[in-house]
Amino acid sequence: MTTISGYEYETVTTSPVTPEELQLLKASVLFGPADEAALRQAGEVLANQIEDVLDVWYGFIGSHHHLRAQFSGPDGEPVSRYLDAVRGRFGQWIWDTCERPWDEQWLAYQNEIGLRHTPYKKNRTDRVESTTHVPLRYLIALIYPITATVRPFLEKSGRTADEVDAMQESWRKAVILQVALWTRPYAPGPW
Amino acid sequence: MTTISGYEYETVTTSPVTPEELQLLKASVLFGPADEAALRQAGEVLANQIEDVLDVWYGFIGSHHHLRAQFSGPDGEPVSRYLDAVRGRFGQWIWDTCERPWDEQWLAYQNEIGLRHTPYKKNRTDRVESTTHVPLRYLIALIYPITATVRPFLEKSGRTADEVDAMQESWRKAVILQVALWTRPYAPGPW
Ligand code: HEM
Ligand code: HEM
Repeated sequence: MTTISGYEYETVTTSPVTPEELQLLKASVLFGPADEAALRQAGEVLANQIEDVLDVWYGFIGSHHHLRAQFSGPDGEPVSRYLDAVRGRFGQWIWDTCERPWDEQWLAYQNEIGLRHTPYKKNRTDRVESTTHVPLRYLIALIYPITATVRPFLEKSGRTADEVDAMQESWRKAVILQVALWTRPYAPGPW
Repeated sequence: MTTISGYEYETVTTSPVTPEELQLLKASVLFGPADEAALRQAGEVLANQIEDVLDVWYGFIGSHHHLRAQFSGPDGEPVSRYLDAVRGRFGQWIWDTCERPWDEQWLAYQNEIGLRHTPYKKNRTDRVESTTHVPLRYLIALIYPITATVRPFLEKSGRTADEVDAMQESWRKAVILQVALWTRPYAPGPW
C-alpha cells in the first residue's frame, strides 16, 4: 500500500459529533442496514474504477472557474501539486465511504475533512497558498455532480437495475450525510 | 385563490445574492435549459398531488422526534397552528419551485425562506414559541427525503421512464440549489 500524502485517518481521533448525533443524521437521510450493504457493494464495484471516477470529477472542477479557483494560487493558476495531493485523498475517500465502519474514528476524520474545506485548515496539509476556504454553497451544490456521475460506473458492474439503484441511493445518502457533517465548522452554533 | 398565511412572496424584494452568483450555483448543480423544461413538467404533474406529497413529508417529520421538535412549543408538544400554517406555504413552495421564473424576486424569497429557518426569523411569521432555529445539518440532510419521495408522484403521470427521470433530476438539482441558497444566513461569511 502506497502512502497517500496528507491522509491522516489514523491520526485524528476525537470528534465533536457524537454517535447519537450521527444516528439522527442517518435517520434523517433514511440510511438503514440495507444501505450499508448496498454501499459495500458500491465500494467493490467502484474500487477498480476510482481513477476514472476522479477523472470525471476533476474534469468538472477544472472546467469551472469558480471551482478551479479553490485549487489556485495567488497568481490565479491551479497549483498542480495541490490538485495531485488532494486527488489521492479523494480516491481514498470513495473507498472509506463505502468500506469503513462509520465509527468514532470515522466521525473524527469527517470532522477533519470539514475543517480542511474551511479557513481553519484549508491549504495547511499540503502547505500551499490558495483561497481561504471552499464557499459553503459550493460544498452543498457539489452533492449533485458527485452523486449523479457515479451511475455509469455502477452500471458497468453488470448487476441488475434494482441492484444499481440500491447502490446509487446508498451513495446519495452517504454523500448528503457527510456534507451535512462537514458543514459543522462553517457554523458550529446553529449546526 | 385563497390567501396563504405568512406567504410573502411579493413583499420581500431584495436579495443579498446576485443573479451572477445564482448562475454559478446553477452551473455547479448542472442545471440547464432542459432542466427548466423538465421542472415545469414536474410542476404540472405535482400540481394536483400537492396534498399527498405533503402528507408524506409531514408523516416523515412527524415520526422523528428531532424533526418534530422544530415545530414544538416549550411544553414539547407540536404546535398545530404552526404546522398548519407552514404546510400551506410548503405546498406553495413546490409550485413556486417548478413554475416561477428564478429571477430577483425569487432570489429575494429564497433569502426569506433561509432566514425563516434561522434565529433571525424562525417562529416570527406565525407568532409561535418554538426552537430558535432548524439545525443546519438537518436542513441539508432533508435533501434526501424531499427529493427521493417525489418519484412515485412523478410516475403517476404515466409519462415515459425517460421523462420521469428528467423531471426527477431537475427536481433534485432545484432542491439542492435552494438548500445551498438557504444556508447563507447560517454562515454569511464563508457562504
Ligand atoms: C459533495 C461535495 C464534496 C466532496 C464529497 C468533497 C470531498 C473532498 C475530499 C474527500 C477531500 C480530501 C479530504 C482529505 O484531506 O482527506 C477534499 C478536499 C478538498 N476539496 Fe472537497 N469535496 C466537496 C466539495 C468541494 C468543492 C465544491 C470544492 C471547491 C472546488 C472542493 C475543494 C476541495 C479542496 C480545495 C480540498 C483540499 C483541502 C485542503 O487544503 O486540505 N471540495 N474534498
Ligand atoms: C430540503 C429541506 C427543506 C425544505 C425543502 C424545506 C422547505 C420549507 C419551506 C418551503 C418552508 C416555508 C417557507 C415560507 O415561509 O414561505 C419551510 C419552513 C419551515 N421549515 Fe423547512 N425545509 C427543509 C428542511 C427543514 C427541516 C430539516 C426542518 C426541521 C424539522 C424544517 C422545519 C421548518 C420550519 C419549523 C419552518 C417554519 C419556519 C418559520 O417559523 O417560518 N425544514 N421549510
